[in-house]
Amino acid sequence: MYSFKNDYSDGAHPAILKALAESNDVQTEGYGEDRFSLEATNLLKRKIGRKDVDVHFITGGTLTNQVAISAFLKPHEAVISAKSGHIYVHETGAIETTGHKVIPVESSDGKLYPKQIVDVVTEHHFEHMVKPRLVYISQPTETGTLYSRTELEELWKLCGKLNLLLYIDGARLASAIASRKSDTTLPDYANLCDSFYIGGTKNGALFGEALVICNDHLKKDFRYHLKQKGALSAKGRVLGIQFLTLFTDDLYLKLAAHSNKMAEKLQSGIESAGFKMLFHSYTNQIFPIMPEEVIAGLEKKYLFYRWEKTADGSPTIRLVCSWSTEEKYIDDFIKSCSEFS
Amino acid sequence: MYSFKNDYSDGAHPAILKALAESNDVQTEGYGEDRFSLEATNLLKRKIGRKDVDVHFITGGTLTNQVAISAFLKPHEAVISAKSGHIYVHETGAIETTGHKVIPVESSDGKLYPKQIVDVVTEHHFEHMVKPRLVYISQPTETGTLYSRTELEELWKLCGKLNLLLYIDGARLASAIASRKSDTTLPDYANLCDSFYIGGTKNGALFGEALVICNDHLKKDFRYHLKQKGALSAKGRVLGIQFLTLFTDDLYLKLAAHSNKMAEKLQSGIESAGFKMLFHSYTNQIFPIMPEEVIAGLEKKYLFYRWEKTADGSPTIRLVCSWSTEEKYIDDFIKSCSEFS
Amino acid sequence: MYSFKNDYSDGAHPAILKALAESNDVQTEGYGEDRFSLEATNLLKRKIGRKDVDVHFITGGTLTNQVAISAFLKPHEAVISAKSGHIYVHETGAIETTGHKVIPVESSDGKLYPKQIVDVVTEHHFEHMVKPRLVYISQPTETGTLYSRTELEELWKLCGKLNLLLYIDGARLASAIASRKSDTTLPDYANLCDSFYIGGTKNGALFGEALVICNDHLKKDFRYHLKQKGALSAKGRVLGIQFLTLFTDDLYLKLAAHSNKMAEKLQSGIESAGFKMLFHSYTNQIFPIMPEEVIAGLEKKYLFYRWEKTADGSPTIRLVCSWSTEEKYIDDFIKSCSEFS
Amino acid sequence: MYSFKNDYSDGAHPAILKALAESNDVQTEGYGEDRFSLEATNLLKRKIGRKDVDVHFITGGTLTNQVAISAFLKPHEAVISAKSGHIYVHETGAIETTGHKVIPVESSDGKLYPKQIVDVVTEHHFEHMVKPRLVYISQPTETGTLYSRTELEELWKLCGKLNLLLYIDGARLASAIASRKSDTTLPDYANLCDSFYIGGTKNGALFGEALVICNDHLKKDFRYHLKQKGALSAKGRVLGIQFLTLFTDDLYLKLAAHSNKMAEKLQSGIESAGFKMLFHSYTNQIFPIMPEEVIAGLEKKYLFYRWEKTADGSPTIRLVCSWSTEEKYIDDFIKSCSEFS
Repeated sequence: MYSFKNDYSDGAHPAILKALAESNDVQTEGYGEDRFSLEATNLLKRKIGRKDVDVHFITGGTLTNQVAISAFLKPHEAVISAKSGHIYVHETGAIETTGHKVIPVESSDGKLYPKQIVDVVTEHHFEHMVKPRLVYISQPTETGTLYSRTELEELWKLCGKLNLLLYIDGARLASAIASRKSDTTLPDYANLCDSFYIGGTKNGALFGEALVICNDHLKKDFRYHLKQKGALSAKGRVLGIQFLTLFTDDLYLKLAAHSNKMAEKLQSGIESAGFKMLFHSYTNQIFPIMPEEVIAGLEKKYLFYRWEKTADGSPTIRLVCSWSTEEKYIDDFIKSCSEFS
Repeated sequence: MYSFKNDYSDGAHPAILKALAESNDVQTEGYGEDRFSLEATNLLKRKIGRKDVDVHFITGGTLTNQVAISAFLKPHEAVISAKSGHIYVHETGAIETTGHKVIPVESSDGKLYPKQIVDVVTEHHFEHMVKPRLVYISQPTETGTLYSRTELEELWKLCGKLNLLLYIDGARLASAIASRKSDTTLPDYANLCDSFYIGGTKNGALFGEALVICNDHLKKDFRYHLKQKGALSAKGRVLGIQFLTLFTDDLYLKLAAHSNKMAEKLQSGIESAGFKMLFHSYTNQIFPIMPEEVIAGLEKKYLFYRWEKTADGSPTIRLVCSWSTEEKYIDDFIKSCSEFS
Repeated sequence: MYSFKNDYSDGAHPAILKALAESNDVQTEGYGEDRFSLEATNLLKRKIGRKDVDVHFITGGTLTNQVAISAFLKPHEAVISAKSGHIYVHETGAIETTGHKVIPVESSDGKLYPKQIVDVVTEHHFEHMVKPRLVYISQPTETGTLYSRTELEELWKLCGKLNLLLYIDGARLASAIASRKSDTTLPDYANLCDSFYIGGTKNGALFGEALVICNDHLKKDFRYHLKQKGALSAKGRVLGIQFLTLFTDDLYLKLAAHSNKMAEKLQSGIESAGFKMLFHSYTNQIFPIMPEEVIAGLEKKYLFYRWEKTADGSPTIRLVCSWSTEEKYIDDFIKSCSEFS
Repeated sequence: MYSFKNDYSDGAHPAILKALAESNDVQTEGYGEDRFSLEATNLLKRKIGRKDVDVHFITGGTLTNQVAISAFLKPHEAVISAKSGHIYVHETGAIETTGHKVIPVESSDGKLYPKQIVDVVTEHHFEHMVKPRLVYISQPTETGTLYSRTELEELWKLCGKLNLLLYIDGARLASAIASRKSDTTLPDYANLCDSFYIGGTKNGALFGEALVICNDHLKKDFRYHLKQKGALSAKGRVLGIQFLTLFTDDLYLKLAAHSNKMAEKLQSGIESAGFKMLFHSYTNQIFPIMPEEVIAGLEKKYLFYRWEKTADGSPTIRLVCSWSTEEKYIDDFIKSCSEFS
């Protein structure tokens, strides 16, 4: 059965496998000090448009969030996150296990807004409460919504004013930047937050994320933190080679553009077939609202996740497209929607 | 320059790259629940000779030690390790960062002996001291020495008697088992400890270790611990495919046999050239004692690490062979030893 | 200015100072193994009606919650608490600093209800989320509301069914038990939860809480946890002597009865003066709703805290009575209410 | 039986009980913001001779070490301690439970020497090892030895040069300063380290230590750390009143002078009776070497601890004098030594 469950169902983009094979006999240093990782770091700095950032390659998203956030905070400092934030819900307490509270903020669209941050800081006013110190957002959010450039600027400005760090989880950052609705580019991120990561796992890599640290104060000794949390790969070259490939000829954005295009086609096709969306998506995840019998029918042909029901109890599903999604499955899925309804 | 620095200088064995390429288009579940990981798990259980063990694939050794040990212990419980143990010296406090003390024991050969364990337990007799609960050993040790079957049995029996858990770090376990001096087989390990891991990174994989949990009491909820520590890979298939390949036709032991053979040839060649060893090695690392001028000469042609000096101040070096070490470099290195002396 | 700010404004009940003075020259063992602590332990067991519980005396409430909860849980296990729970709001992340997430549940009256617990457990269904394992409630709650015997029985039964531990924060437990509305006695608590603590600091002691562990599985090695968290007092006798005094002739309940009585008189007096309460209290804290000008007037004569405003924006205050509150201040406060309105 | 086991066997000096009784009816703010704590803080600053230090009162020594050290360090930073250091041996991993490794250094006399610190720093040279950041010493040491002023100055200078923090555990600091051999005064300590604490528990208080933070960079948000670790007492006044009493009329030093004098008399008496000491002591603990039969005899009349045997296997004991030790017991003990030999 074809799967729309997620964007990490397949292997890697063929160019990555090719690069791994071609470099296989080269001997290198270990632990990220190999030539490929250094080259990839330089390439990313050029793409980001800033030579002064630090780049670290890490095997996965949860580990990236954990190492970064625990390295950036002192014991009594806490994180502000949307209640739907990945670190709050779906990382089994990876932040708390390093000793830090994650303060959840209600959010209908997965985004954090300035007023909410001000409210949290105002409420946490003395030493009997944790001290909010880092704002965690995802771009795009868990539900595929996007922060606009203006919104990011407002958050960044507010964080500066309130002495908060801004950290952006970019597990699907490529999909955000490649979005038809995007008004941000990769260099923007380096100028609008203290640290962010560029996800590879969900955009064509075998695995791997690139953490970018923009704030000078957060750079020191970071490799100690990586090693301590088990995030310094002996064959760091495997990460370097992958990011080198992804950022050559902008493969990274091309893959995300494909994912988004497939999702958009799927979305409008399903809408044409008479179904509404939980909200209109501009990234590679869409959230159709469908009657139970249609979902049940589709489940006979396709794999996908059910999502939370709407306020009035209507079932919804999540469909995710990836760099490898073939158009024929999009066409067939749309056709099937009509058949089962 | 050719490198004898370590056994993770190259990429992966070609069979692994081939398997990754061939499986690339297959869609799978994420997080280790894919068909490849399940198949690899079953294959390893057969090779281990026990269906009741649990197997988890993890990206690296430090992360494996950290997840396992922190999951197995209660907050006041501590680890006993040789002072040269990897977790004590070279993992940047990865165990301590999870809250547990590592109690170091002096060791001239990298091994722990029963009397030393008894002494630690006797000394830690009341609640003002941590409670020793887990014995950490490496097979082979950091210096390439080996525990015999009898020695492992004695440790295992003692641990049972003292209510201690026995955990074996097998970063280079293949080299130990494939050693000419070995009297242990893979199934032995499942019956002589509570948990151990089979290293892939240092034996032909791109990366990856297989943690084996033998003690029923330690199995529960282990995937929660994996996720919490960032050790549950989204594309777990990449680990599964690698271990599936390594354990097909015993490629795993064949690669280690090659590493050992190359190291043995290198060792006897250097001895014939008139140099002594820090101790005679039976695994893939050797430790020649050489005058400074010989080392300096060799450093012009080869990459390798200098090691701790002997008691009487003679310089030593470490040379590591791997699955990919070519014999011609062995021959040339030996020749060079004579040239520079 | 007389203070109604809290129940720890004064020193200790004179009987406690007397007992400390009388025992001052006696030499004892340290760290809670002195004769007074042992005697106090036995006395408490008798009062609790169970010889098989373990009792530990600890200097303060936050430390008690921290030691107990961190000792009871494994790293991936989490706590369920009302959003107003002391550990969630006012202990600066004392639970999270030991690695555990506290899952907040909305609560209008400070209490947790069975359905809410079932919902949390249902929602946390797999290893990408923390595993709820301990239910934290306070009796009385932060806002002075009380769980009835039936409610506690229901929670206890539910916890058993869902494999959850039930822990009761009894910082003001005496006030709950001595409440006119109470249908619970001290022995009830030992039979309706896994562990609870009896607060001394807020009921006449210089400081100190008595942690009671009822569940056999949670008792082992607890003194190690105490020492590790800095909660084992060298002169443990100071705690033992205080609890010995508090539980002799039921001084403990008498003091709480006085606090409650003063609060009740204050509440009905203020009501008679024409003011409403945020809710009717049966313990030693009351929460009058008052116009800003009345509050401002009272603030010239008395110290007390402002509380959260009501839903419709009316200001409220919190008044706390203690074992030492003198009736003349109650009378005067009530009179002042009328004067300033 | 009279006890020489430790210096926390008795209650408090009568002046402290008197002060507690006299202040008992005064209402105060909670959590260390009461008038007594503020007054005690100011008094200590005067005695220390520096207005710019921060002073925090904490219930016990282990908790003080834990809060301070965990607040001062980042996750990958470690502590250097003598192997006999209290935090290394006798606090059940209270430092490690906050995530930090304690690096032990062999020491025959309980003291750390500059060369040893240089060696540790040199050895820990890269990110695969923890980063030494704080030097922990005790004055006097666990075995009663003393650092001279010159030695402290050397350590302090070295720490500055190596970018290390210097922290002094002063559980028995009074005994060190009041020692006949002392060439340091209280103000010296504020100028020779980043932070130290002045012990009360072992010098006449019911309990309590005064942590002094001299380094500006370590002061920020310290009350958050106190609260988070359960070290902020609701009735902080009880600590404030005690230190106010101890530092009025230098009671603090007078009590220590008495302890030292009793110990000195005991030491020379035992020497005159024909016994040697493990080493000559100038503080309130002495360590006689005695034949087994003498020890056994003394154990019939007195309580004390046996100590580690000498290198040649001779038994030793530890005798501790306190502020309350009466001379008649000293005389009798000395007499008994002769009787039993």
